[in-house]
Amino acid sequence: MRIALAQINSTLGDFESNKNKIIESILSLSAKKAEMIIFPEGALFGYHPFDLLERDSLISQQLKVLKQITRSIPKNIHVLIGGFEKNAGKGRPYFNTAFLCTRNKIIKSFHKELLPTGDVFDEARFIEQGKIKNNYFKLNGKNFLLTICEDIWAWDSIYAENPIKKLPRKKLDLIINMSASPFHKGKMAMRLKMAQKTARQLKAPIAYVNMVGAQDEIIYDGQSFILDKQGKLVHKMMSFEEDTNIFDLTTRESWNRSAAKETEIEQLRKALVLGIKDFLHKTGMTKVHLGLSGGIDSALVAVLAVDALGANNVKLFALPTQFNLNESFAVAQQLAKNIRVDLKDISIESTFQHIKNIIDEEFKIDKFSLTHENLQSRIRGLFLMAYSNFSGSLLLTTGNKSEYATGYATLYGDMCGGLAVIGDLTKKEVVDLCKLYNREAEVIPEFIITRPPSAELKPNQKDQDSLPPYDLLDQSVVNLVEKKKPAKTKTDHWLLGQLMKTEFKRWQAAPILKISAHSFGRGRRYPIAHKAKG
Amino acid sequence: MRIALAQINSTLGDFESNKNKIIESILSLSAKKAEMIIFPEGALFGYHPFDLLERDSLISQQLKVLKQITRSIPKNIHVLIGGFEKNAGKGRPYFNTAFLCTRNKIIKSFHKELLPTGDVFDEARFIEQGKIKNNYFKLNGKNFLLTICEDIWAWDSIYAENPIKKLPRKKLDLIINMSASPFHKGKMAMRLKMAQKTARQLKAPIAYVNMVGAQDEIIYDGQSFILDKQGKLVHKMMSFEEDTNIFDLTTRESWNRSAAKETEIEQLRKALVLGIKDFLHKTGMTKVHLGLSGGIDSALVAVLAVDALGANNVKLFALPTQFNLNESFAVAQQLAKNIRVDLKDISIESTFQHIKNIIDEEFKIDKFSLTHENLQSRIRGLFLMAYSNFSGSLLLTTGNKSEYATGYATLYGDMCGGLAVIGDLTKKEVVDLCKLYNREAEVIPEFIITRPPSAELKPNQKDQDSLPPYDLLDQSVVNLVEKKKPAKTKTDHWLLGQLMKTEFKRWQAAPILKISAHSFGRGRRYPIAHKAKG
Repeated sequence: MRIALAQINSTLGDFESNKNKIIESILSLSAKKAEMIIFPEGALFGYHPFDLLERDSLISQQLKVLKQITRSIPKNIHVLIGGFEKNAGKGRPYFNTAFLCTRNKIIKSFHKELLPTGDVFDEARFIEQGKIKNNYFKLNGKNFLLTICEDIWAWDSIYAENPIKKLPRKKLDLIINMSASPFHKGKMAMRLKMAQKTARQLKAPIAYVNMVGAQDEIIYDGQSFILDKQGKLVHKMMSFEEDTNIFDLTTRESWNRSAAKETEIEQLRKALVLGIKDFLHKTGMTKVHLGLSGGIDSALVAVLAVDALGANNVKLFALPTQFNLNESFAVAQQLAKNIRVDLKDISIESTFQHIKNIIDEEFKIDKFSLTHENLQSRIRGLFLMAYSNFSGSLLLTTGNKSEYATGYATLYGDMCGGLAVIGDLTKKEVVDLCKLYNREAEVIPEFIITRPPSAELKPNQKDQDSLPPYDLLDQSVVNLVEKKKPAKTKTDHWLLGQLMKTEFKRWQAAPILKISAHSFGRGRRYPIAHKAKG
Repeated sequence: MRIALAQINSTLGDFESNKNKIIESILSLSAKKAEMIIFPEGALFGYHPFDLLERDSLISQQLKVLKQITRSIPKNIHVLIGGFEKNAGKGRPYFNTAFLCTRNKIIKSFHKELLPTGDVFDEARFIEQGKIKNNYFKLNGKNFLLTICEDIWAWDSIYAENPIKKLPRKKLDLIINMSASPFHKGKMAMRLKMAQKTARQLKAPIAYVNMVGAQDEIIYDGQSFILDKQGKLVHKMMSFEEDTNIFDLTTRESWNRSAAKETEIEQLRKALVLGIKDFLHKTGMTKVHLGLSGGIDSALVAVLAVDALGANNVKLFALPTQFNLNESFAVAQQLAKNIRVDLKDISIESTFQHIKNIIDEEFKIDKFSLTHENLQSRIRGLFLMAYSNFSGSLLLTTGNKSEYATGYATLYGDMCGGLAVIGDLTKKEVVDLCKLYNREAEVIPEFIITRPPSAELKPNQKDQDSLPPYDLLDQSVVNLVEKKKPAKTKTDHWLLGQLMKTEFKRWQAAPILKISAHSFGRGRRYPIAHKAKG
């Protein structure tokens, strides 16, 4: 029996486009003699739905479209499509569902049992638990078990019970897992481990079909795979792009080639590029712009934006005051030239002086202070947002994770923007990614990478005047935020204090593309009004 | 047996201050011959903890403080204190717990069974389910059942099973419910209904002990109560302030007086005042400021701020351009005089012209547009934030719910601020609250209340040029957002479109004091990148 895995990029709530994509895949894969075609979790509705599930009418729209899809299924072909189904009984209003369909018919629906509620997930808000013990089915003489994403993740201690371990012993030809599993560094190894344990426990191969594409902060990396019943990887699909494969249950052979190995930094690049591309595409925008300071963060964001959207869709602004060095502008210009993007130079010095004079007089301020530093940052935000209003271009935010963690960012200043592209990268990752772009030729001028970081908001300012050295800071960010460890070092303790008192800034931050196990943004929910010292 | 209800205002993570408050209550209530003293859910840790539960060290700190408390409990007195307990077994890391303590001893801990995950709640992130069938206990010959908040809320269909209905029939002298139940309009009636059903089902009186105080967006209203076993209200405690009562299980008499009835609008006022007061207090701030436009929204926020913090802690700014009418300034001045607050008048006209000239030239803009309207709003934000930086005063945001719903607000402009005081009020509620303040004397000049709303960002602008009439808009906001109903009217459909496309603004909004069943803010989690039409 030939099993197809269709790793597609759905758009949340775009039922027409998801339908067309699913039908196209069905037709092309059945033309290649696939007998069962498997789509990712939530492929029809889009995923993660968040509180769109408040709106019942969307579920009706989805069901209507599902019926339309079944009319396009060729005879004797079976299709598994992820979506949401109304719960007719008691409990929460929907099930996270895999619909087993054939020509003109929805044969059966299978429900997810384990509902993730950690980090970015909120499945316990609207989803009722199913039972995977009801998810066995037989087709063409073969025995299948259907699981959805988290159902195979209870091998660690987060769940009091592991439903996989409680399953009856039944003959199984294939375990299917339909997922919308977000990318983060190290995630693929975790997935393989969970799938391996499941395959070994149930003594059957597993077909893991993951979503690809980005939605707000979450990036799905695809990388769907097949393991044999010993848990050995027999096929892996492409990362960060749509892909298909057909696996023959009898011959154990794959129709498509397995994806090549990639470095982690290359995966980071692909993740962020997809994150930008899909945010634009799925919000109906085409162009972006940002302030290019001559520092490393905005340089990287500019290069990523060009990688994602092409030079024609990116615009850069230099918005200097007296505190910006000439070298900063020179290297910004060089970078803009390298990536063939227009860099517009608008001095904000006169505006800064104009407002500074007023506030100094009105508020009786007699010396240069943080107020004036923030003022410059906010004037930049104001010019960049004026361009947004005028042109319909999306302003990209350029802060990195280490800055967000310490609160070293100006609310309504450099925090302005619709998408925080590198807000989940440590400073080291920013450098590494710049080096990746420079591997073949110098795209980002070396000076940008090696110069001491500075906000250039007062004379001779260096980040290191206010912050610990970035290597120590990065390590503390990883330990405290990503690994949630207790504070141990001096830098840890300092950072913990900063984290606790700067939450009010992050509360109002733009969506942050998530590439780590624990990012700022909607997956990390801290209060503002508290006295916890951590 | 004399049962005390201690409705206290805890601060999240402030173990020392919570401990002291709890010990004081224990001593004063046991002096009044209370034999058992009941505190709210989470009283020791503070509530809602959100992701502070990531930090294990906080749980250790809490346990240490709990032991200190037990040393202060007088002999033969029993105390029930809400907090979090580590889960030693499998599953999520903590239990939401009621600790039964006596002198020098934690006798037993009881765990919450139903974990709310709707709206602002996130209990399934870190909390493992307990079983209320294990929560029976006997003391001084009396039989008790301990429940925590949501445990008595499964009378509607959100939960597949109602644990109250599955309890064995046992003799019960009192049901205890320890809650941290947030206020919203109509909430008290729901609580009474849930408690009534529980009392009748188990044929026992119920003591409902609720938290009071505000934390970020959530306002706990107290209003703890006792129902007899027929579900009749026999005592209700004060709203929006700390209060205590002692109820004698034998005589069925209360030591303290029952709270007087209040109108809904008076409760709204108290809620918002407490919301402001506690946000400041619990973040360690004392002063607030805001832009006073001469419109109704900022007028109301100014009056609420004075009500919460006193005139000395409030500062007002008029930041006019050529588009602000003289009458607007005159009424703003009158209001400032009425509430005895300093109104500082700083024209932003020259700044507006200065920046307008630059952007018109640089971006080749040749006619007055939305860009210029937003520019004015953002310049105001910039001045108000400069004052924040300079003085340490908190900027209050003045948008109402109907504006937030439509996206009729400028990101980084009038959306600047640390707390959105009236962001969950419809325009009608804004008017009603102004009228409440004017009941005895004209505090808010009548012209402010009756004039047609205008943003005054271009000549002769009226809100109604861009928005539906506020009475229709308000109704649609209530139907679509609060009641989550499908769109029916023309205004509904228009608003649904606006809601779906303006989420990017609300994503970056300040915390919004929640007074309705469903507010914008952390309890309503909508995606940005999607094509759902609702």
